[in-house]
Amino acid sequence: MGGDSPIGVFDSGVGGLTVLRALHRSLPRESTIYLGDTARVPYGPKSPDTVLRYAREAAAFLTGRGVKGIVIACNTATAHAKRALTDALEIPVIGVVEPGAAAAAAASRSGAIGVIGTRGTIESGTYERAILRARPDASVFSEPCPLFVALAEEGWVDGDVAELTTRRYLEPLVSRGIDTLLLGCTHYPLLAPLIERVVGPEVELVDSATATARATAARLDERGLAAADREARREYYVTDDEARFSEIADRFLGAPARRVARASLGDVSP
Amino acid sequence: MGGDSPIGVFDSGVGGLTVLRALHRSLPRESTIYLGDTARVPYGPKSPDTVLRYAREAAAFLTGRGVKGIVIACNTATAHAKRALTDALEIPVIGVVEPGAAAAAAASRSGAIGVIGTRGTIESGTYERAILRARPDASVFSEPCPLFVALAEEGWVDGDVAELTTRRYLEPLVSRGIDTLLLGCTHYPLLAPLIERVVGPEVELVDSATATARATAARLDERGLAAADREARREYYVTDDEARFSEIADRFLGAPARRVARASLGDVSP
Repeated sequence: MGGDSPIGVFDSGVGGLTVLRALHRSLPRESTIYLGDTARVPYGPKSPDTVLRYAREAAAFLTGRGVKGIVIACNTATAHAKRALTDALEIPVIGVVEPGAAAAAAASRSGAIGVIGTRGTIESGTYERAILRARPDASVFSEPCPLFVALAEEGWVDGDVAELTTRRYLEPLVSRGIDTLLLGCTHYPLLAPLIERVVGPEVELVDSATATARATAARLDERGLAAADREARREYYVTDDEARFSEIADRFLGAPARRVARASLGDVSP
Repeated sequence: MGGDSPIGVFDSGVGGLTVLRALHRSLPRESTIYLGDTARVPYGPKSPDTVLRYAREAAAFLTGRGVKGIVIACNTATAHAKRALTDALEIPVIGVVEPGAAAAAAASRSGAIGVIGTRGTIESGTYERAILRARPDASVFSEPCPLFVALAEEGWVDGDVAELTTRRYLEPLVSRGIDTLLLGCTHYPLLAPLIERVVGPEVELVDSATATARATAARLDERGLAAADREARREYYVTDDEARFSEIADRFLGAPARRVARASLGDVSP
C-alpha cells in the first residue's frame, strides 16, 4: 500500500458517483475502486447500528483490496460510521460531511446557511453541528427534501414537477435570508442547475462532492500518498445486478462506468 | 397449525400494510403476523435472485411462527418468489399479482386495461402476463410511476406536485382509452383519491390490496382454515428500527400498529 494504491470510495448505491466524479476531476491520476452496496440501498431510512455494520463490511472489502484511503461517499454512512472507521483503520478516512460543512462555512458572508438532505441526514443534525464547529456564529436552516432522490433517479431534473417540488422545499429557506446553500446529499448535484435557478444568484451553492474531493487530495498530500504520474485504473463493485448499475451510473458519473463486478458483502453474496 | 393460527403477511417495508389493512377489513376475526423487511427495503431495484433469497428468509421466519398461510404483500417479491414459495411450502401462498390481475380483467368492459407500478414491476411484465392469462383479448397499457412511492411516503398525496406528477404519468394511459386502471404497487392506494380524480369517472380503479384480501379469504375457506369466532391478535415484526416503522405505519394501515418487535432475518440481526 503506497502512492500507487487505489483510493476506495463507497456508498449505498449510485449517489456516491457524484463524489467519485469530483475525485476523478480533482485527482485524474489516482486509481479508484468504487463500491456501491446496491443490494441494500438506501441507507437513509435504516438505523444507525445497521448502517454502521454495513459500512464496516464495505471498509473491510476495500482494505482487502489494498486501498490507501477510504472516502465515505454517503451522508448517512458518514454520520453513523466515520468515527468508528477512523478509529479502526490506519489509512485516512474521509467523509462527505466535514468538507461540505467547512466549505459552506467559508463561503457564507452573512453566516446564514441553508442545508438540504434526506430526512435521515437532516434529522441527525450532523451537518448543522459540523457547520457550527467550523463557524460558531453561523445560523443554520435545515430542510429535508426526500423527493429529490426520486427525481434525480427518475431523471426529472427540470420541468414543472421538479421545479414545483424545488420551490416548495427551498422557498422557506430562501425567505430566511440564507446566502449559502449546502447540498447535503450526493444525489442533489444532478438538480443543481434547477436549484440554482430557484434560489437565485444571491445564494451560493456548495456541494459536498467537490469539497470532499479537495479534502481527499489534501489528506493524501499530507501523508505523501499522492499517485505518481501513470495511468489511473478505475474499478466498480456492486452488491446487486451490475447491468442495472451501469445503466444509471452514466448520469451520476458523467461517463460510462466500465469494469463493473459483483462484490460479496455481509450476507449479500452474488 | 389450524384455523386459529395466524396469517403471515410480508413485504419489504410499509407498503404491504395496505394489503394488511384490506385483510383486516375482509377478515376481522383472523390473527395476523406482519413482517416488514425494513432493513433491506426496497426490493424493487434488487435482482430477482436477491429478492428470492430475502423472500425465502421471510417465509421461514413466518412458518417458524406457525402461520396457516402466507400473503406476499409485495409486488416484487410476488413476481420473483411466489412460485418457489408455493412449491416449497404446504400452506397456501397468496401473492398480490394474480388477484389484482383477475379483478382488473373482470372489471373491464372494453378490455383496455392500464397497469401502473414501480419500474421493476412494470418492466417484469408480470401484471400484463397475468391479465392476459385471465382475459386473452385484453389490451394492456403499462406505465411505471416511480415517484409515487416517494410521494406516498412523504405524505404528499394531494396538492400541486402530486397532481402534476399524476397527470404526467396517467394522461398518456387515459388517452389510450383504458376503462380500468390497476394499482400494481402497494403504496398506491394512498394516492387513490387523487388518481381517481385525474383519470375521471369513466375509468374504474382496481387495487391489488383489496383483491388479494378477497383471494386470501377464499383460499382459507377452501381449505377449511378460516378462524373461529374469537379475538384476533395482530403482531408486527420489522428488521430495522421499530419506532420508525410505527411512525409511518398509521398512514398505511389506517390505525396504529401495536406490538411491534424486531426480527432477525438473514444477516439482519437486531
